Amino acid sequence: MRALRYHGRSDLRLDDVPEPAVTPGRVKVKIHWCGICGSDLHEYVKGPITMPTSDHPHPLTGESLPLTMGHEFAGEVVEVGAGVQKVAVGERVAVEPLLICRKCHCCRSGAYNRCVNFGAIGVSGGGGAYAEYIVVDPDFVHPLPVGVSTVAAAVAEPICVGWHAVGRSKIGPTQSALVIGAGPVGIGTLISLKAAHVEFVAVAENSSGARSAMAAEFGADLLIDTSTQSLTDEIARVTDGQGVDVVFEVAGVQATLDYALAAVKHGGTVVSICVWEYVPSMDMNTILAKEINLLGSQAYANEYPAVLQAIADGRIANPERMVTKRVSLDDALDQGFQELLRHRGDHVKILVTPWSSVPR
Amino acid sequence: MRALRYHGRSDLRLDDVPEPAVTPGRVKVKIHWCGICGSDLHEYVKGPITMPTSDHPHPLTGESLPLTMGHEFAGEVVEVGAGVQKVAVGERVAVEPLLICRKCHCCRSGAYNRCVNFGAIGVSGGGGAYAEYIVVDPDFVHPLPVGVSTVAAAVAEPICVGWHAVGRSKIGPTQSALVIGAGPVGIGTLISLKAAHVEFVAVAENSSGARSAMAAEFGADLLIDTSTQSLTDEIARVTDGQGVDVVFEVAGVQATLDYALAAVKHGGTVVSICVWEYVPSMDMNTILAKEINLLGSQAYANEYPAVLQAIADGRIANPERMVTKRVSLDDALDQGFQELLRHRGDHVKILVTPWSSVPR
Repeated sequence: MRALRYHGRSDLRLDDVPEPAVTPGRVKVKIHWCGICGSDLHEYVKGPITMPTSDHPHPLTGESLPLTMGHEFAGEVVEVGAGVQKVAVGERVAVEPLLICRKCHCCRSGAYNRCVNFGAIGVSGGGGAYAEYIVVDPDFVHPLPVGVSTVAAAVAEPICVGWHAVGRSKIGPTQSALVIGAGPVGIGTLISLKAAHVEFVAVAENSSGARSAMAAEFGADLLIDTSTQSLTDEIARVTDGQGVDVVFEVAGVQATLDYALAAVKHGGTVVSICVWEYVPSMDMNTILAKEINLLGSQAYANEYPAVLQAIADGRIANPERMVTKRVSLDDALDQGFQELLRHRGDHVKILVTPWSSVPR
Repeated sequence: MRALRYHGRSDLRLDDVPEPAVTPGRVKVKIHWCGICGSDLHEYVKGPITMPTSDHPHPLTGESLPLTMGHEFAGEVVEVGAGVQKVAVGERVAVEPLLICRKCHCCRSGAYNRCVNFGAIGVSGGGGAYAEYIVVDPDFVHPLPVGVSTVAAAVAEPICVGWHAVGRSKIGPTQSALVIGAGPVGIGTLISLKAAHVEFVAVAENSSGARSAMAAEFGADLLIDTSTQSLTDEIARVTDGQGVDVVFEVAGVQATLDYALAAVKHGGTVVSICVWEYVPSMDMNTILAKEINLLGSQAYANEYPAVLQAIADGRIANPERMVTKRVSLDDALDQGFQELLRHRGDHVKILVTPWSSVPR
């Protein structure tokens, strides 16, 4: 079958690989849609960052480059291995792409997103979803509620990242939030905040293009264009000089981290969600003087069902709107990856499909 | 009266200044003991850092250099202004040295240690306690419970810093802690952890001298000498490779911050307590992957009475043991400040007194 495999920096190839065979206790999924993640772009341009090389195979999969990419995906079950009860052939499903050890203290406590051997499908081996089929663990296969499309289920992944971060923040409905960065995870965070009925959510993005428009579409109460406006002045203006209760830092660069410390109120919380390409500096004296809570947030744990249900019952309305382009697997490199590198600001989420005809 | 005033970097002088006069609603205290704080040393060697210069007078006091130093103090009330009910002449008291605006959202919420105009006696003006007398706000004057000496009440200040940090961490009795740095605040944190019945407390210090001995004295369950031992190996050894639940970073240098991120368990908490002389780098990808909670902790709020009571009822037993030397105000510069700069590792807390005879 066709699979888009990462061989190293700037080297993605549409390879012909063996179609994976189902084994006892596992499930074969025909992939409908897979979103291109910012972390995939990072690997493509600056990697290998997280993806395992031959001198350091991933501890869970034992695999190393080249590896099939793609982890934000949904599709339909086409075959189940012996003993699988959870899902049946024909069911449409989202696949939570995490790979975990099930043995460490994090896995045993339920916080499996903190697994000391943490990995992900499409990153660490275990197949990837820029391909036709994948065989996965049914524990991480979530049947779609009635009315949830596989397009919505594919974008559920970045929404889950935001949903988890919002949970980490413990923000309440009457509190105020600032999301810095209106890419897919930023929009997913905005969506999750609004689903949690948070009263005031500002979104900052360094342009006034498609991403800001998307933030407006999903209910941002204030848009700040940091290319023309002062973020700190705007936040001071709308919060009576106090700052917001919670800042979600979803850009992962020095300037946005500095903004976050400036925009959060004394005693407030900054949640950092993005993987960093470098080690930033941190103004610890501001962390101290304001008694800031700085929280790291990684992926999600036990949150896929909640997000899929919120899509089904309309608390998350029509998340398909996040999708700014759909491309075929054959065109994924040029019209997907390269398009995002050329015109990042014009897009929120680009989806890839290996099939010429799948449910939209 | 005599007062040790800071005129600028490396310039502390025993000046003759007017004795402060009590005014309505305020209280005059004869100072018994004042501890030399690490932040005083920072100012002396690298300052002005926090102390206000003439181009930036402190917003609350309007004062700037030269200023009397000293903020960890206790003594006795010698005069009360009109309308003061809280304390009477002759009472022995600890003075909480914070200066706050009482108007910002932090002060109104009770978290006055986060005051947006935060200041401190002995730092920001309002007098200082390397002197004979001081006139203060009775709201911040705490009568000593029976059996609490003014020596204990002076060292209550760094204990309060630790007590507050322990509260911020939300650590529970069955959890594990690591305190990095066994100076006065590190020892104060250890004391507070033990008063909260925390089962396992390791203390790391980069020597095996007086500070480690003090940590042993106050009940540390494990001493790590980072000059000869690997902190991460030791913590891994005693926590089955998991790391501790909470790290208190009380040294404020890059190496100890890096240690803290390495030694904390996935999902654990790092509390940073020390003022920094520079902006460190922060490994954000570790913060994310381990989902660390990094909390700033500054001073204390509403914690003096609890600490004084804990000293009175023996949960904090004989905190006078923290004092490694007592010097007169006349000798404070040479036998106090210079002694700490020459032989920091030999001391935990040096106390200064302006009187030749005060209760020990």
